[in-house]
Order: sequence, then C-alpha cells, then structure tokens
Amino acid sequence: MNKRPLILVTNDDGITAPGIRSLIAVMKELGDVVVVAPDRPQSGMGHAVTLDAPLYCDKVEIDPDLVSEYQFSGTPADCVKFAVSSLLDRKPDLCVSGINHGSNSSINVIYSGTMSAAIEAGIEGVPSIGFSLLDYSWDANFEPLKKDIKLITEKVLEKGLPKDIILNVNFPKLSTFKGVKVCRQARANWQEKFDERTTPQGKKYYWLEGEFVNMDNENDTDEWALANGFVSVVPVQFDMTAYTAMNAVEKLMF
Amino acid sequence: MNKRPLILVTNDDGITAPGIRSLIAVMKELGDVVVVAPDRPQSGMGHAVTLDAPLYCDKVEIDPDLVSEYQFSGTPADCVKFAVSSLLDRKPDLCVSGINHGSNSSINVIYSGTMSAAIEAGIEGVPSIGFSLLDYSWDANFEPLKKDIKLITEKVLEKGLPKDIILNVNFPKLSTFKGVKVCRQARANWQEKFDERTTPQGKKYYWLEGEFVNMDNENDTDEWALANGFVSVVPVQFDMTAYTAMNAVEKLMF
Repeated sequence: MNKRPLILVTNDDGITAPGIRSLIAVMKELGDVVVVAPDRPQSGMGHAVTLDAPLYCDKVEIDPDLVSEYQFSGTPADCVKFAVSSLLDRKPDLCVSGINHGSNSSINVIYSGTMSAAIEAGIEGVPSIGFSLLDYSWDANFEPLKKDIKLITEKVLEKGLPKDIILNVNFPKLSTFKGVKVCRQARANWQEKFDERTTPQGKKYYWLEGEFVNMDNENDTDEWALANGFVSVVPVQFDMTAYTAMNAVEKLMF
Repeated sequence: MNKRPLILVTNDDGITAPGIRSLIAVMKELGDVVVVAPDRPQSGMGHAVTLDAPLYCDKVEIDPDLVSEYQFSGTPADCVKFAVSSLLDRKPDLCVSGINHGSNSSINVIYSGTMSAAIEAGIEGVPSIGFSLLDYSWDANFEPLKKDIKLITEKVLEKGLPKDIILNVNFPKLSTFKGVKVCRQARANWQEKFDERTTPQGKKYYWLEGEFVNMDNENDTDEWALANGFVSVVPVQFDMTAYTAMNAVEKLMF
C-alpha cells in the first residue's frame, strides 16, 4: 500500500499552461499526482459538460515524475468526471485545479472553468481546491504562490474539508502576501460591452468584453482581501438554494 | 409610453425548440416579448461564456406577434449578456428561460444552460425565472404547463422577486399537477459512465453518460415534490459562499 495521497490535478487553461505546471510542481512534493486536463484552453467554460460530442483522451508525458498525465478533449468538469469514473483506480484524496491565469474571485466563480472543475470534484465527494492568480498573462509569475499553495494543501490533506465545501483560493499579483484571509464572495458583476466588427465578407460579428464592477465596499470580501495584499479563501458550496428567501417566495406564490 | 412589461425570453435548446415556442406563447399574453436565444442546442452548457470566438446575431421572424427575435451564436449566458447590453433599449422587466426539454432540478441547476441564462439575468439585476419539464423529448407536451407558468409569471411581474433571487421551476411529466411547492435543491449527483467506442480509423472515443442518483430522502426537496406530482419552485442564489462553513475553514487555515 502506498501511503502518499493520490492527487488529481486539472485546470481550464490546458495541460501545457504554466499555471498548471507550477501547481504540479508543488503537488509532486505532497503526493502521487495524476493530471487530467483539457487539451486546449477552456477559459469561461463555467460548469459546461459535453453531451453532444465524442471525447478523446490521450496519455502524455510532460513530467516523468508523475503517476500519469492525460490530455482530454472535454471541458474542465468533463475532465474530473472522466478521471474519477474511468481513469483512476480509486477515488483521489484531493483534487486541485489551476493555477488559473486570471482572477476567479467574487462572481467569476460562476464563469470559471477552473472553479467548475474543483466544484465538480466536490460534487463527487473529493476534497477540492481551486487556485487562481490575478494575472491573465501566459507568462505570469507563479513562484511567489508556491509556499502558500503548499501550506493550504497540506492543511486540507491533513484535516480534510467540511462536507460539500470547496475552497476558492485567489492570489493578488504580488511577490509577497500579507497573509491568508477566509472571506465571502464580493457582490460584483461584469458590465458587458460587445465590440462590433465586420468580417472580410461584410458580416457583423461581436467580441464579448466587459468591465468588472465591484459593488461591495465591506472588508470581509475576497475583493477586499485581494486589493489589500492578502490571499483570499472563499468556502464555496454547490447547493444553490437561497434558504433565506424561501419564506418570501412562499408568500409570493400563495 | 407602453405599460406592458418588456419580457426577454431565452433558452438552451435553441430558438426553434418547441419548449421556447410554448413559453413565448404564454409570455405574449403578459407583455412585449423579445427573444434572444441560441441558434442551436446548447444543453449542458452551464454558465459558459464565449471568450475565444466571434459571435453572430441574426434577426429572425418566427412569430410576427413579438417585438423582435434574434438567434445568437453564443451560449445561453451570452444571449442574456448580449440582449441586456447591446440589443434592448431598456432593462427588461423580466427574463424567462426555457421551457427546457428535461429536468433542471437538484444538482442539474449547475449544469443547465437554461438556468444559467436565468441566473445571468439575475446577476444583471433582472427578475428571472427558469422553467423546465421532466421530459427530454423534442416532442414533449408543454400544454399542461401553460396555466401554471402564466400564474407564476404574473405573480413575479406583479410583486417582483427578492433581491438576487432567481426561480428554478420544474414540472413533472404529467397532464395535471397537485400544486406548486417551494422547496430546496435535493442532494443528488450523477454517477458517470463514459461509453467507450472506436472511430472508423481505430481511435478510441468516449460519450459522457450517467445515472442520476438522489441521495436525499427528505420531503422538502424539489425531487420529492416532482416525484409526488407537484411543480417545484427553488429560489436560487448566485452567491456561492458557504457561510455556514466559514468558521470551520477559519479553524482549518490558522
């Protein structure tokens, strides 16, 4: 019996992204690593699953120190489903997703492929953490994150997570951090603008773009923590029931 | 000034699906209808948004009684973003999504394009309802739903919804219903199986399939309501913070 924990690593930027390679480097020190990650970037995929297309899985060897690595043609959530149901001999002890190139704080948790992969693992009963860095660049510097990623992961491996809870961990783009703050998701959204352009053939098309607007001025949010130099940790649930609104909706309906 | 409410209608099965056409038929009686829906089926799209591809929008006229109809090449969430930011002169008074061909009860809320469109509208401050029927067939019978859809929608138009709350309404596959029940999302998940096949060229590929497993035996859930002949109404929130777990995660981290 191997006593090292089995760690599933995935992301949404694709298996070759520097972010996932940095995460793998940390996880190798903590356990036996299996990587099942998208074969191409899948940012903004949310919790999409592939119902209408065949899926392909190729074994690859990018890092010879790992148990195995697979690139998968599905979404981030598909990767976790495929890993847990079809590739792994046993349920992993932990799933980590990321390190995402870009923020998954506040409302971004809902659009994020990185977090959806982590949440999918949570739904399947696997303790799970998503890691993101507030730097969208492919060449982002992930080195300063490694120490805290290792510490947080060690704690989760040692003590476990509350049932049905996933951690959403975001790092500011800094070389050192003031500490780690457990916080709530800030109330924020994207104010969209679609950039209208014209194809060479004369057809109009649109690129989605938008401006992130934080509408939350309190100091217990992830946005506050990140803006003030802290690593933010938001406990995330997949029960989307608004319990506090049930009475109001009862009144509305009847 | 037009006093009829402006109602945005969308879905994830595509603009020609019988489900959305039935929903439009009800909404025409209640307000001025604008349809912005995907140009093709997008089931299982979750809260995906399109960051890496140009998007196309075509005005169509399927029903001459409507203010306007557009088919859009994006995801369901993209449709709502595009409608609210770029197509409509003013914020709609209501967004309705569906009627989905298939269940969006319990954990399906997280995979559902229908519900993600409704949730996106909620994020943008538009009162919003997703409607689904527990029948995946393209030829599903939506007639029995119309009376309750109209009643629920009228109540929301008249009284509004609590802030940041979206309604997830599911109908059992029946000709009459025992009533409407406000409930919570049942604890359930999908146990996946990937069906392995081989291409004519000899490459292995996989189809995602799975079995829905309800692990929740209480009688206050959407699954219970649906199994017992009721229409289920779950108030849904997009703040995914697990407030009840914050102390436990604090303890874990420090």
